[in-house]
Amino acid sequence: MDHLLAAVDLGSNSFRLSIGRVVQQDGIAQIYAIDRLKESVRLAAGLDDDNVINEEAIERAITILKRFGERLAGFHPNRVRAVATNTFRIARNVAEILPRAEAALGFPIEVIAGQEEARLIFSGITSELPPSANRRLMIDIGGGSTEVIIGKGFQPLHMSSLFMGCVSYTRQFFVDGRITESRMQQAQFAARREFETISGQYRRTGWQEAYGSSGTAKGLLAVLMEGGMSKKGITLEGMEKLKAKLVKDGKVIMSELPGLKHDRSLVLPGGLAIMMAAFHELKIKLMLPGEGALRVGVLYDLLGRDSQHDKRDETVRQFMKRYHVDLKQSARVKRAALGFFSQLGLPDGPDKQELERTLGWVADLHEIGISIAHDDYHKHGAYILQHADMPGFSNDDQIMLSLFALGHQGKLGKLQARDPSRDKWLTLFCLRLAVLLSRRRDDREPMPISIQANGHSIRVNADESWLQKHPLTEFSLQAEKREWNKAGFEFELNPT
Amino acid sequence: MDHLLAAVDLGSNSFRLSIGRVVQQDGIAQIYAIDRLKESVRLAAGLDDDNVINEEAIERAITILKRFGERLAGFHPNRVRAVATNTFRIARNVAEILPRAEAALGFPIEVIAGQEEARLIFSGITSELPPSANRRLMIDIGGGSTEVIIGKGFQPLHMSSLFMGCVSYTRQFFVDGRITESRMQQAQFAARREFETISGQYRRTGWQEAYGSSGTAKGLLAVLMEGGMSKKGITLEGMEKLKAKLVKDGKVIMSELPGLKHDRSLVLPGGLAIMMAAFHELKIKLMLPGEGALRVGVLYDLLGRDSQHDKRDETVRQFMKRYHVDLKQSARVKRAALGFFSQLGLPDGPDKQELERTLGWVADLHEIGISIAHDDYHKHGAYILQHADMPGFSNDDQIMLSLFALGHQGKLGKLQARDPSRDKWLTLFCLRLAVLLSRRRDDREPMPISIQANGHSIRVNADESWLQKHPLTEFSLQAEKREWNKAGFEFELNPT
Repeated sequence: MDHLLAAVDLGSNSFRLSIGRVVQQDGIAQIYAIDRLKESVRLAAGLDDDNVINEEAIERAITILKRFGERLAGFHPNRVRAVATNTFRIARNVAEILPRAEAALGFPIEVIAGQEEARLIFSGITSELPPSANRRLMIDIGGGSTEVIIGKGFQPLHMSSLFMGCVSYTRQFFVDGRITESRMQQAQFAARREFETISGQYRRTGWQEAYGSSGTAKGLLAVLMEGGMSKKGITLEGMEKLKAKLVKDGKVIMSELPGLKHDRSLVLPGGLAIMMAAFHELKIKLMLPGEGALRVGVLYDLLGRDSQHDKRDETVRQFMKRYHVDLKQSARVKRAALGFFSQLGLPDGPDKQELERTLGWVADLHEIGISIAHDDYHKHGAYILQHADMPGFSNDDQIMLSLFALGHQGKLGKLQARDPSRDKWLTLFCLRLAVLLSRRRDDREPMPISIQANGHSIRVNADESWLQKHPLTEFSLQAEKREWNKAGFEFELNPT
Repeated sequence: MDHLLAAVDLGSNSFRLSIGRVVQQDGIAQIYAIDRLKESVRLAAGLDDDNVINEEAIERAITILKRFGERLAGFHPNRVRAVATNTFRIARNVAEILPRAEAALGFPIEVIAGQEEARLIFSGITSELPPSANRRLMIDIGGGSTEVIIGKGFQPLHMSSLFMGCVSYTRQFFVDGRITESRMQQAQFAARREFETISGQYRRTGWQEAYGSSGTAKGLLAVLMEGGMSKKGITLEGMEKLKAKLVKDGKVIMSELPGLKHDRSLVLPGGLAIMMAAFHELKIKLMLPGEGALRVGVLYDLLGRDSQHDKRDETVRQFMKRYHVDLKQSARVKRAALGFFSQLGLPDGPDKQELERTLGWVADLHEIGISIAHDDYHKHGAYILQHADMPGFSNDDQIMLSLFALGHQGKLGKLQARDPSRDKWLTLFCLRLAVLLSRRRDDREPMPISIQANGHSIRVNADESWLQKHPLTEFSLQAEKREWNKAGFEFELNPT
């Protein structure tokens, strides 16, 4: 069991579970799939006009997740990663659904951003292809979003996530299932407008091979091949034939299309329109199937975290550079904050580990908002951390970073609506204390200050004679005390 | 009259009017003051706990502005600049006050950010000092904010605006006017905490001369000199003597302090505490008076705009670089947008000029949000433009840039709460049309498209055969039509 990893992909059209075995070969870790489950859920079709997922679709999802959960029983939480994509990104009732979904699965579920999805898809497809020096174009038409990537080797060159998918387009342009020439054209135009925003850049970079990795690509390929519309791969010519047939029939007729599976037939028109638009805008000649995609990318990412090469560390390093962080100051704050954190006495476990890592990252990044303006820089930093593309971080990760950045100085009242847990409050306390004691931005002698936490009580022990020599620090600690009292914590400054 | 410029400084403690004459000397333009008015208004003292300015204070302000307006009657709007600082930045009823204040003055009033205030103060003081290769520290303790700058020649090296002033600190720490040792200490500690955030950096850079430019500095200097507490300039020793005397007397007694003016006596304790904190934290030995400050800085800035060296152009150039704007794309969009703007037929005048300049700037900057994330980049761009320190731009300028950035793509409904004027809507239309036609990011043949606007009707003329060859553009224009209809405009696509 120790060498197994599991990925769950909660897509807008299907949910997938992959279990992989880690094998070390010549010092390189490889993952071999040992089990795969795929279930059609068509979650995006359960969205109403206000982007609320209806109860029927939620129950379909819960039923599937329970089955996945059964298969995953006994896995250590560190060895399972579940990611949710576009429908979860846009659903307005996601806050109600997630806890139910997590309870059914038995593991936390991360909602990931489009860019992060693109990065994982690229990593997944690349892992399943033979090594090559060619640039590769990859298109993944999901239920609610379409990811487009160019990469070379393991290096992505361009990554985009476009806001359209086979489920949403079929719903939008082929209401009632009727297929006409004009509906097909409207859908293709709308999709071309999306591709148009990236086509110039992608075509300038260029590629030698094109892969399609989603159910849409595989479904199209099967229909084109088995129906004799294409000899090899997906081509525009083959798709034109398929389109002509669909328009002539006026709808998708299963018996007319050998190779088509039932769940794919429901979203074929939208998927076809998007794929044809991609071929037109990007001038694709031939597309081959790419395996793996998101779920395999997640497995490799998990492997990285496992072996101490967490993608998130690299992202934080890049952000410190991009936003010109004062490295000495962030190092001071980080050292002090992690020192206090170790004194909190939180119970060991994955929760503590994750809080500690988050504290380290946010100490590194707490001043990035200065790049926008010094006034209210904590708010600007919180804005960036919430909205930026941060490879490796889930939306929830980013919301937590953002919370800490926002709260690292100033009043605490602004955080109460977000209702942090007691352990998060205390972690934030470590950060604030570190920032407060590092305000001078110089390296002074180590400060004789330690902390203790007990329930909702915080005690700050400080050497009395040192405190008398540093009245400004004492003054600042008194101001801090008032804030923590307002946040519902007892705060005792204890001269020793 | 042609060579006169006027600056109005609506400070938190006093309002000032300066009229300067522009003289060309050896090809360099210099400004000589020919008239100055100063009136104590103590606006910050009229702020209640919710940061609402009370009616009494507003009326004091209006009365003074009417007098200034009388003096400025006949000035061309391009030759007057009125700037408002901290109290206007924080007052919650500023939206009600500004129109009344502008009506009284007869000219628009710009609320400027702290960094912009610091930049103008530096420029003003520097202009009045002899040239020098020394680094100079400048401190301007206003009624509600304190600006701290180090500069060399005409180049600012560090600029900060701290959130404390002589009016706000006197109110906060010396309620009822009573002065005690402990109150003085609390006020000094609070001020030192503010200086502490910048003192390390400033001291590392260092300076050879220190100047104080505000009423607080001048008032302190007069009291110290005439009271025999200092021989030259402001010193910590002199201020300690003054503080001891104030604490002994228990309040400010005018007759005990030769050199003190009545309006200064009301805010002396807060100003003294902040100045002493500055000396402690920054290790200042001696401070000399600096003349000019904000109002002279504003005059020189106005001179720059007049002679086609608008600081704002330079800021936009720097932002394009800092945020890695795709220069070719912004040039394409700018060229097309300004072309459409010239077809709008807006009446000539300063309003049209300002809209046109704003359109050019926002075309340059409309993609800066991509630096945060590609998804919703228009929102991120709007956020940056609203919050960043943009030298030369007022808050209102930035709000307008932000509005255009937010509206340059996507739905228009989001702008309706901000209720743009008809001419702003039309200017935005030019930008949107330019962006829409430039989506491919390549340089195609010039597009045979022109526009006409009449009231709330927009007509887009497009060559019919060209349109037939570009069905995607027509599709996009139809989508655009729906948006403008929802915004209350008729939109006709007219094939010619």
